[in-house]
Amino acid sequence: MDFLKNIQLVGKMIFGAGSFDRLGDILAEKRSDSFMVFLVDDFFKGRELANRVPARKQDQVLFVNVDIEPKTAIVDDLRDRMLQVSGQAPDGVIGIGGGSVMDYAKAVSVMLTNPGPSSRYQGLNLAKNASVYHVGIPTLSGTGAEVSTTAVLTGPEKKLGIKGDFTPFHQILLDPELIYDVPRNQWFYTGMDSYIHNIESLTGHYANTLGNSLARQSLELCRDVFANGNPTDIASNEKLMVASLMGGLSLSFSEVGACHAFSYGLSFVLGTRHGVANCIAFNQLEEYYPEGVAEFKAMVSRLGIDIPAGVTAGLSESQMEKMIDTTLALEHMWRHALGQGWKELISRGKLREIYQRM
Amino acid sequence: MDFLKNIQLVGKMIFGAGSFDRLGDILAEKRSDSFMVFLVDDFFKGRELANRVPARKQDQVLFVNVDIEPKTAIVDDLRDRMLQVSGQAPDGVIGIGGGSVMDYAKAVSVMLTNPGPSSRYQGLNLAKNASVYHVGIPTLSGTGAEVSTTAVLTGPEKKLGIKGDFTPFHQILLDPELIYDVPRNQWFYTGMDSYIHNIESLTGHYANTLGNSLARQSLELCRDVFANGNPTDIASNEKLMVASLMGGLSLSFSEVGACHAFSYGLSFVLGTRHGVANCIAFNQLEEYYPEGVAEFKAMVSRLGIDIPAGVTAGLSESQMEKMIDTTLALEHMWRHALGQGWKELISRGKLREIYQRM
Repeated sequence: MDFLKNIQLVGKMIFGAGSFDRLGDILAEKRSDSFMVFLVDDFFKGRELANRVPARKQDQVLFVNVDIEPKTAIVDDLRDRMLQVSGQAPDGVIGIGGGSVMDYAKAVSVMLTNPGPSSRYQGLNLAKNASVYHVGIPTLSGTGAEVSTTAVLTGPEKKLGIKGDFTPFHQILLDPELIYDVPRNQWFYTGMDSYIHNIESLTGHYANTLGNSLARQSLELCRDVFANGNPTDIASNEKLMVASLMGGLSLSFSEVGACHAFSYGLSFVLGTRHGVANCIAFNQLEEYYPEGVAEFKAMVSRLGIDIPAGVTAGLSESQMEKMIDTTLALEHMWRHALGQGWKELISRGKLREIYQRM
Repeated sequence: MDFLKNIQLVGKMIFGAGSFDRLGDILAEKRSDSFMVFLVDDFFKGRELANRVPARKQDQVLFVNVDIEPKTAIVDDLRDRMLQVSGQAPDGVIGIGGGSVMDYAKAVSVMLTNPGPSSRYQGLNLAKNASVYHVGIPTLSGTGAEVSTTAVLTGPEKKLGIKGDFTPFHQILLDPELIYDVPRNQWFYTGMDSYIHNIESLTGHYANTLGNSLARQSLELCRDVFANGNPTDIASNEKLMVASLMGGLSLSFSEVGACHAFSYGLSFVLGTRHGVANCIAFNQLEEYYPEGVAEFKAMVSRLGIDIPAGVTAGLSESQMEKMIDTTLALEHMWRHALGQGWKELISRGKLREIYQRM
């Protein structure tokens, strides 16, 4: 019965080109006499989108750097800076950026109303107080962070999400015109997060008709862009945006699998960004996802993408051990990927051997 | 820009066989010292499911008859009966049944906190106060009422939904084991609501990548059941349940079209139940949906379904005029189906001619 998950969905959703122009009106309904905080990827500093943010005089616009994976310490710092403004929580937190900014916005909204360090809340439903109103506005597609119930964070001890009913956004705004140009490799890594979500969702032991239906449609959209379509086509942004949403929603009712278990190890020990870490891991997982990995390699080749190799070559023994520990701790992912008897099917030696190929 | 809709989604969702056994725990979190009301399709009176309802001593279990389309007067009556119990609103309203019960549960939850007759709230965002916590548990699949932002009601003057942010369920529970056997014709009519939603969503002027993606996957599931699969297969229940959900969600970001405009006229004037009214109408709409109607007819033939004919034969002139008025008033459906210039493309005479074929 533990595959029956009661999932908190996002509150409201607006979709379509031009919807960003509605943001001011949407927020107006949620304002009291306090302020709002816009958390914006610092990529947009000085760019047009930053000027279009409908901030009022009392609001804060905080640019966040996402060169490194979201950290619990940064969440705590952002929370403290917001509380210092007037001694009370803001009326809302609006995240504008990729998956990392989504994670920051979700995590900070929970931490504004729950005391102590955010590392204490890494896990399922550990926060007791409702989060502050928060809005997610993705500018990159693939992670599914805009609909997920998790704010994935790396803390001092682990990479694990603040997961629960208070995490999902109260509002998401999906405007394909906001998707910004990034280098081809990064675009692929982020989009591929969605492709991998779908493969993991569809092939595991928790697979079900709802999760599968969402994943199948998301997969079709991914293929439209990466396998068959013209990725520079304007319609591709829209397709990837919907693929990300449906893939993320699919996962809520299913689970990620072996690729994410390996990828978390890479990110925790080496700080590898999530999208590329997934690609590095998936590239070596034919054994678990034979068809998916074959199609992945064909897309990599078709689009001329570079998948980093040799990233674990210089690891110390203790780093490798830590990586294996991180991976093994993600029991829910392994249980989904391999079933209840997963511990019989993998070993530290096997994980090490796979990591060494990355 | 009026196609950019900011849609309130359902709150939480649990999916899977056996999830009904979780209902008691789910409700426990929402109970204060008040009571809860279970609105149950009276089909279940004396049947096993009625005994499985996790009602506590203080709760009400009200069986509702849905032989006729949901009426505003019945909503008002249900509301008054609930308020009489203790002079205050219940902690929650739980609807267990088909689309009509879903509509009653949604409408009553809004009317428990908004004064006056429910006919006053037929329209968009007319209710000002947040609704009572309400839960939707479908026992028939197709209508999409479990996810829609509308509680469709027939009032003294019109058939039109109480539509808005307070209408959607706070929780839906989708347990395919609850789908009960109904006569083959009725099962088809209800399921076909989803098929028609998808065709209308995909072909209209508000069509967009999000709505289309949901509709396409829903359509595939409908075809799995009605066009290719074995409808008595146990998996069919699950597929139709997901098809209903995705079709309903697709509509939220798109719109129904000409078939629903005609169908509402039939229901308002003749009291025809929604599912069969859609089938009667769709059967005559080759002009607007050539491929969809051809496939519909093939499914009808394959499954040996009876589509009533001659239902408008005995109409008085004033009834026919009223039917045409009802259809023409649904401007948003026509705008989606035919575009901004819809008024140039249809006439009272044309609508009459189509109605006369039904």
